[in-house]
Amino acid sequence: MANGFPIDGQLIERLNEGALGALEDDYASLGRQLARRGIDVETIRSRVAAFSVAVPSWGTGRGGTRFARFPLAGEPTGILEKLEDCAVVQQLCRITPRVSPHFPWDKVSDYAGLREVAASLGLGFDAVNSNTFQDQPGQKHSYATGSLTSTDPAVREQAVAHNIECIDIGRALGVRDLTVWIGDGTNFPGQQDLGRSFDRYLDSAAQIYAALPDGWRMLIEHKMFEPAFYSTVIADWGSSILAAQHLGPKARCLVDLGHHAPNVNIEQIVARLHRFGKLGGFHFNDSSYGDDDLDSGSVNPHRLFLVFNELLEAERNPRDGFDPAYMIDQSHNVTDPIESLLSSAEAIATAFAKALLVDRDMLKTAQEENDVMAAFQALRTAYRTDVSPILAMARVGAGGAADPIATYRASGWRTAMAARRRPAGSTAGIV
Amino acid sequence: MANGFPIDGQLIERLNEGALGALEDDYASLGRQLARRGIDVETIRSRVAAFSVAVPSWGTGRGGTRFARFPLAGEPTGILEKLEDCAVVQQLCRITPRVSPHFPWDKVSDYAGLREVAASLGLGFDAVNSNTFQDQPGQKHSYATGSLTSTDPAVREQAVAHNIECIDIGRALGVRDLTVWIGDGTNFPGQQDLGRSFDRYLDSAAQIYAALPDGWRMLIEHKMFEPAFYSTVIADWGSSILAAQHLGPKARCLVDLGHHAPNVNIEQIVARLHRFGKLGGFHFNDSSYGDDDLDSGSVNPHRLFLVFNELLEAERNPRDGFDPAYMIDQSHNVTDPIESLLSSAEAIATAFAKALLVDRDMLKTAQEENDVMAAFQALRTAYRTDVSPILAMARVGAGGAADPIATYRASGWRTAMAARRRPAGSTAGIV
Amino acid sequence: MANGFPIDGQLIERLNEGALGALEDDYASLGRQLARRGIDVETIRSRVAAFSVAVPSWGTGRGGTRFARFPLAGEPTGILEKLEDCAVVQQLCRITPRVSPHFPWDKVSDYAGLREVAASLGLGFDAVNSNTFQDQPGQKHSYATGSLTSTDPAVREQAVAHNIECIDIGRALGVRDLTVWIGDGTNFPGQQDLGRSFDRYLDSAAQIYAALPDGWRMLIEHKMFEPAFYSTVIADWGSSILAAQHLGPKARCLVDLGHHAPNVNIEQIVARLHRFGKLGGFHFNDSSYGDDDLDSGSVNPHRLFLVFNELLEAERNPRDGFDPAYMIDQSHNVTDPIESLLSSAEAIATAFAKALLVDRDMLKTAQEENDVMAAFQALRTAYRTDVSPILAMARVGAGGAADPIATYRASGWRTAMAARRRPAGSTAGIV
Amino acid sequence: MANGFPIDGQLIERLNEGALGALEDDYASLGRQLARRGIDVETIRSRVAAFSVAVPSWGTGRGGTRFARFPLAGEPTGILEKLEDCAVVQQLCRITPRVSPHFPWDKVSDYAGLREVAASLGLGFDAVNSNTFQDQPGQKHSYATGSLTSTDPAVREQAVAHNIECIDIGRALGVRDLTVWIGDGTNFPGQQDLGRSFDRYLDSAAQIYAALPDGWRMLIEHKMFEPAFYSTVIADWGSSILAAQHLGPKARCLVDLGHHAPNVNIEQIVARLHRFGKLGGFHFNDSSYGDDDLDSGSVNPHRLFLVFNELLEAERNPRDGFDPAYMIDQSHNVTDPIESLLSSAEAIATAFAKALLVDRDMLKTAQEENDVMAAFQALRTAYRTDVSPILAMARVGAGGAADPIATYRASGWRTAMAARRRPAGSTAGIV
Repeated sequence: MANGFPIDGQLIERLNEGALGALEDDYASLGRQLARRGIDVETIRSRVAAFSVAVPSWGTGRGGTRFARFPLAGEPTGILEKLEDCAVVQQLCRITPRVSPHFPWDKVSDYAGLREVAASLGLGFDAVNSNTFQDQPGQKHSYATGSLTSTDPAVREQAVAHNIECIDIGRALGVRDLTVWIGDGTNFPGQQDLGRSFDRYLDSAAQIYAALPDGWRMLIEHKMFEPAFYSTVIADWGSSILAAQHLGPKARCLVDLGHHAPNVNIEQIVARLHRFGKLGGFHFNDSSYGDDDLDSGSVNPHRLFLVFNELLEAERNPRDGFDPAYMIDQSHNVTDPIESLLSSAEAIATAFAKALLVDRDMLKTAQEENDVMAAFQALRTAYRTDVSPILAMARVGAGGAADPIATYRASGWRTAMAARRRPAGSTAGIV
Repeated sequence: MANGFPIDGQLIERLNEGALGALEDDYASLGRQLARRGIDVETIRSRVAAFSVAVPSWGTGRGGTRFARFPLAGEPTGILEKLEDCAVVQQLCRITPRVSPHFPWDKVSDYAGLREVAASLGLGFDAVNSNTFQDQPGQKHSYATGSLTSTDPAVREQAVAHNIECIDIGRALGVRDLTVWIGDGTNFPGQQDLGRSFDRYLDSAAQIYAALPDGWRMLIEHKMFEPAFYSTVIADWGSSILAAQHLGPKARCLVDLGHHAPNVNIEQIVARLHRFGKLGGFHFNDSSYGDDDLDSGSVNPHRLFLVFNELLEAERNPRDGFDPAYMIDQSHNVTDPIESLLSSAEAIATAFAKALLVDRDMLKTAQEENDVMAAFQALRTAYRTDVSPILAMARVGAGGAADPIATYRASGWRTAMAARRRPAGSTAGIV
Repeated sequence: MANGFPIDGQLIERLNEGALGALEDDYASLGRQLARRGIDVETIRSRVAAFSVAVPSWGTGRGGTRFARFPLAGEPTGILEKLEDCAVVQQLCRITPRVSPHFPWDKVSDYAGLREVAASLGLGFDAVNSNTFQDQPGQKHSYATGSLTSTDPAVREQAVAHNIECIDIGRALGVRDLTVWIGDGTNFPGQQDLGRSFDRYLDSAAQIYAALPDGWRMLIEHKMFEPAFYSTVIADWGSSILAAQHLGPKARCLVDLGHHAPNVNIEQIVARLHRFGKLGGFHFNDSSYGDDDLDSGSVNPHRLFLVFNELLEAERNPRDGFDPAYMIDQSHNVTDPIESLLSSAEAIATAFAKALLVDRDMLKTAQEENDVMAAFQALRTAYRTDVSPILAMARVGAGGAADPIATYRASGWRTAMAARRRPAGSTAGIV
Repeated sequence: MANGFPIDGQLIERLNEGALGALEDDYASLGRQLARRGIDVETIRSRVAAFSVAVPSWGTGRGGTRFARFPLAGEPTGILEKLEDCAVVQQLCRITPRVSPHFPWDKVSDYAGLREVAASLGLGFDAVNSNTFQDQPGQKHSYATGSLTSTDPAVREQAVAHNIECIDIGRALGVRDLTVWIGDGTNFPGQQDLGRSFDRYLDSAAQIYAALPDGWRMLIEHKMFEPAFYSTVIADWGSSILAAQHLGPKARCLVDLGHHAPNVNIEQIVARLHRFGKLGGFHFNDSSYGDDDLDSGSVNPHRLFLVFNELLEAERNPRDGFDPAYMIDQSHNVTDPIESLLSSAEAIATAFAKALLVDRDMLKTAQEENDVMAAFQALRTAYRTDVSPILAMARVGAGGAADPIATYRASGWRTAMAARRRPAGSTAGIV
C-alpha cells in the first residue's frame, strides 16, 4: 500500500518533469553507446528496476563512536518514526522496499500491528537481527562475559532464548532470515581458550538452528574485531563457513564489507563462500580502517563493483539455491541518514548495473586465453560507463524521484520532523 | 604525604615478608648472572626505583566501545574516588606517583583543594588533557563540525578557550604540560578541504600555544583514525611534527602506541621525533587492530622494549632538553582497572629495565662493523632476561608490594568500594 | 621529430576513421550533459590534451618478483629498444612524451647521441633515477651494508658519486630532476642505530644536493618496506619531508602510490606535502598489499581520482613553485608492457579529467557550510562521469589512436619485435 | 651416524667446559624458582631435549629480494654443501635433525645415495617441497599462466606430474609429507575467474592426493600475496581448509607465520585448524609487513609463544592424529644463514619451553571463572621466565654447544668454506 508514502507525490512529479528532458537525452545517448556494444539498455533498466536492498531500522538514526554521538534534530527515536523515514527512502528511490529490524531496539507489543503499519507505508520486513552484545535494563544475566560463547551456561541460555524470540518475532513480521552477529571475544591473550569458545559457539548456535522454521535461514556474520580487541570468536569467513557447515543447510554466511583484515580481497571471499553453497547475504557499507561503517561505495566504489561482478557470476553459476539477502549496514555519524541511505542505495544499484554491463563471453574467452589485458578491459569498460541515466529512468518509471536527494531536500521533511519529534540524546555509541 | 595511602600498610608488610625469601634468592641469582655480563644489578635497581609513569584519572573506570560498556561494581564515579584508586595503584607499585587529569571530566570548583587531596594520598598531577571531541551539557557550540579545525569561527574560539582554561587549571594543579588531542576529521571524501583544515588547526593551536606559561609544553597527539573514518587532521607523526615545528619550541609530539597505521615501525618514529628535538611524551598501551587501548605490553611486549631501547638511546644522545612525559593510556573494558594499571606499570618498567641491560658498547661496535647477528643478540640477550626480581626489590624497597596484584586482591578494596560507592551507568562509550 | 614514430601512421588513421562516428556521438552527448552542468567540454579537452606523464625506460620490459620473472617474446633488452617501445606508447596515446631513465641500467657511451635518438622518435627525457640498491659487475664496493647510509664511508662516497654522475648524465639528456630512492634499512631490531642511520643519510644527501645545477630538483622517494623488512631509513613521508627541509629548497618529496602503510590516506599526504611547499612528484601505480606495482588505477581508480583532486586543489593554491613531476612506475609482470602503459596513461588522464569536472565553487561552499552530503556529491558527480570520449578526442586530435590498445594489437608490433630482438633472460627480480 | 659432524668435537667440548660453571648456577637458580611454582625443571628439560624442527635446504644460502641478492663468501651452492651446513647447525643446537628438500633445486641422480650422505652427517629428511612457481631450463610448459590452476591443461598436467615426482623422491629419502605451495593468482581484476580457478586447483590437487602413499600427508600452504598481487588462489586458511576437507583425511593445512593479512590473530587460526583436525604443520619465521621471511621470533617473540601455547593446548586435546610438521622457513638476506638458523632454532625452542611452563590448571580455572587478569598472568608468568639455561643444558646434554653461535664463530667454518667453495652469483631473487 504505497498510498501512505510520506512525501507529497505531486512534488516528486513536478521535480521529475523538470529533470526529464536532460534525463531522456542522457538515456538515449547511453542507449546508443550500449547498442554499439551489443547491449540493450532496456534490458539493463528492467534488471535494475527489479533490484532491491533492505535498509536497517537503526540506520535511520544518527550513529556515533565511543567518543561521541552528535544527534540530528528530527531524527527518529522509535520504530514507528524509523519506519516513516524508511518509507521516505523507499518512496524516492524505489529499491529499498524492506526494513531489517533489530531486537530489542525495535520491540513493540503487537508485531502483527507493526507489520500492518509498515505495509501501509509501502514497506515489508527483512532479516531479523538479534542483539546479545549489550545489556538491556532488567535483563537477568549480563553479557559482560560474552553471549553464545560465555562460560556461564545461564548466559548462553539467555542468549539462545533471545535469538529464538527473534525468530518468533520474525515469523509475525513475515521474515525468513535471522542474522546472528555476536561480539564475543577477548582483550587479553589467555582470557579464554580459543578452541573451547568456538565449541560453545557451535553448541549454542545449534540450539538456535534447531528452532528455525522451514524455509528460514540463519545468517552468520563474522567481524574481525571490535568490541573485542585481541580475539573474536567469529572473526573471519573461515570460522563462519566452518560453523555454517557444522550447523547444516539452513546456515549461511553473511559478508559485511567492513569486517575484514586490511588488504583482504573481499570479492574472492564472495567467490569462495558461493563455491561451497554458503553465501547467504551482504551488509553493504564502506571502510578505510576497520568497521568504519561509512556510506556504501563512498571510499572505494570499484570494490563494490567487483563484489557485484562476483555476485553476477554466482547468479550465472548457482549452487544450492543462491539467493543472497542484501542490506545496507552503515553508521550515519555526520549526515542526514535519509540522504545517506538514498546515496548508498544509488551506489549499490550503480555497482549492480555496471556489473550487468560486463561482456561475460568476452571476459571468459580472455580468461581462457590468458589475455590478461583483454580480461581486465572487459571489466573496466563496464565500470567506466556512467549508468546513472538507467538508474534514474528506472526510478522514475517506478514512481520515484529522478533526483532523490534534491527532492528530499525540497520536501522539507527533516525540518518538519524536527518540529514534531522529541529530541534524541547525545550519548556516545550506537543506539 | 604517603600517610594517607588507602591500603593497610601492615597487610603489605605481612605479604612481603612471606615473599621475601624467594625474592632474595631470585634477585641474588640474577645479580650473579648480570655480574658475569659486567652489569651491576644494584645500579639497575636504582634506575628502576627512580622511574615513573603517570596514570590517567579516567583509566580508573571501566571503559567501553560504541557497542557497550559493562560497569564494574565499586568503580569510581568522580575525581575524588578516582584519586583514591590511583593512590592504591601508587601505594602498591610505587612508580605511578602522578595522575593525569582530563577536563571537563575532572572538573571541580576548587583546584587548590584538589591538589591538596591528591597530595594527602601521595599523588601529584601530570599533563592536563583537554576534551573537544564531545559535547557537554550546556555547552554553547557543538563540536559536530570539529573543534580546532571547524569551519565555524565560534566553535574554534570555544575550543581554544577550553584549552586555555585547561592550562589555567593545570597551573593550579602544579602541572607543566598540556596534551592536545582532537578527533577532527572527515567521514567522506570532499567533506572538508584537507589543506584548509590543517591551516585552521595551525591557527587555533597557535592561540593555545601563545597562552602557554614559561616552562610549559604543548604535547600534540596524533591518531590515525577514530572518531573520523576517512581523514583525520592530525593523523600521523608527520602532521604532528610539522605542526610542532610551526608552533615553536614549546610544542612537542606525543606518541600513543595505538595510534598508528598497521605494520608501522613505531620505534623508528621515536628516533625521528627525537632527532628533530620534538619527542615530548608517550601514551602507553597495546593494540592489535587500531586504537584498541589494550593493556601495555599485553600483546606485544617486545615492541615496548624496542621503544624503550630508543628512549635510552635518546637519553644518551639528548637534543633540545629531552624530557619525555610518560603516561599509561588504556581502556580497561574487561578487568578491574586497578589490576590493569598495576600490571601495565610492571610491563612498562620491565621494558625500561630490559633496555637498561643492553650492552650499548657491544651494540654500537656490532652496528659499526655490520655484524648483524651480534647487534641483534645484544638486544635479545637483554630482552631475554627476567628482570622481575629487580622490579620487585625496587618496589619493596620503596614500601610497595612484592606482588601488587595479589596484595590488592587480599586487601578486599574493590568489594569495600562496591559497598560504599554509587553505581556507574552502563552507557556505551568512554566516559 | 615525430616522423620517426614506429607504427604506421596510415593504420592509425584508418582505424580512427572507423571509430569516429561513435566517438563523435558520445562526445557530443557528453558535451550536452556537461553544458547542463555549466562545463565546457572543449575546455576540458584542451586541458587533457596538455596533460602528460613520463614513462620509465625499465617499464617497457617484463617485471618479476623474487620468485620468478616470465619473459615476453620481443621485449626490449637495451635502452635503444626501450626507447622504441616508449615511442610506440607515445605515438598511440600522445600524453607520454618523456622517458625517465635509470642508471646504470640505461648506460651508454654517448648521451648526446642518445638524446638525438630519442628526439628522432618524438621523445624527450624526464627525471634521472639513480640505483644504489644493487651491486653491478665490477663495482668497487658492495651495497650489502646500505648505500647513502652505510656505516662504511667508502660505500657512502661511491653512492654519492654515482648520484652525481646521474646528474651529469641528466644534464646531457636535458633533464632537471634527480630522483633518489634508496633501499637502505634493516632486517633485525638493533641491526643499525635508527638515529645515526638518518644522520648519515642527511650527510650523504647534502653532498648530492650540493652538486645540483641551478634549476634542478632532488626528488626524495620514500618507501615503507622492501628490500628492508624491519626498518627503512626513508620509510614514510615524515622522514622524507624532514630530509627535504633539512637539505633546502631544491629538495622535494616524491610520492609513489604503492609505498605506504596499509589504510593510509594518501591524498591527505599530498595535501600535507603541498602545504609545506615540498610536493615534488609522483610515481603512479596501484597496489593492494605493498609495493605491488600494479597498473595505475587498476585496483582502486577512485583513489587516483582523489589524488588528482588534491593536485588540482594544489594547482589552484600554489606554493613555492608547484610543478610536480609525474611518472608511471609499475612492474608489468603479466601483460605486454606497452599495453599496460597505454592502459595506465589512460587511467591517469581519466582521473585528471574527472578531477577537472569537480564543481569547486559548489564544493567549497558545501565545505564551508558543513553540508557533508553536498560536498561528497560534488566529488561523486565528477567521478561518475565517463570522460573517455574526451580523452579519445584529445588523442585523435593530437594524432594518436582513438583506441590505443586495439590499434597496437592491429599493428603487430610485438610479433615483429619477437622476430627481430634477442630474447631476455628469465632471471627472477627486476632488471 | 653423527661421526661425520663437520665441526671439531673437541672445540665444542672445550668451549662448553668454560661455560659450564655459569650455566650450572643459572640452571640451579631457575630450578629453584620453578620448583616454587610447582614445576620440575628436569621434566621441562627432557621435553625440550625431545623437541625438534626441520631446516630447509635452501635456507642455508643467502636469500634476496626482487631488487638484489648479496652473496656471502662460502655459502653453499649445491645440495651436498647445503647438507654440510645443515649438519653444522644440527651438531651445535641438536634440535634440527632433519632437512626439508626442495625440487628441482635439490635434484640429484641418486636419492638413495643422498640419503646415505645425509645420514653420515647425522641428518634425515623432512617434508618434500615442490616448485611450480618458476620455470626451469628445458621445462616443456611455462608456469607464466599459473600451475595447478592454469587454464592450460598441459600446464596443469606438468605441475601435477612434478608433484608426483616429488612424492617418489620423498619415498627414496624416507619422507612422509609433501608440502604444496603454489604462487597461482592474478594481478588484475578479471584476469581469471575466482571460482573456476579454485575448481581447477581442487581437480589438480586431487590427482596429487591420489598418488600419496599410505601414511603420507599433503600439506597445503596458503599465502596472502606475492607473487600474485591482486588475488591468490590459496590465499587464506579458509581456502586451505576447504581444500583439505574436499581432498580427504591425508590433506592437512600448513601455517606459515608470514603469510597472513595484517593484524590477523594467527594463534586463533591454529586453534581453528586444530578444531577441525586439519593442522598439519608450520613454517616458522617472522614478519612485519608481508612474507618478509625474517628470523623466527626476531620481531615478535611473544606471538611465537602464543602459537606454541595453542600447539600445547592442541597436544592436550588431540584430534585426528595431531602430529604437526615443524620447519624453519626464512630468507637470510643479511646474516650468515648458519647463525640465523641457530638463533631461530633457539627462539622456537624458547617459545616451546615457555609454553610448557604455563600453569594450565590455573589458566583453565581462571578462564572458567572469567578472571581475566589471572588468566593473562598465567601466560605472562610463563613468558617472563628466562628459559635459556634449560635450552643450554639440553643442548650440552645432547652433545651440542652451550653457546652455538660463539662456538660456530670460533670454528672458522665459513672462512674455511669461502676458501673451498665456488662463489654463488648475485642474481636477484630466491634461488
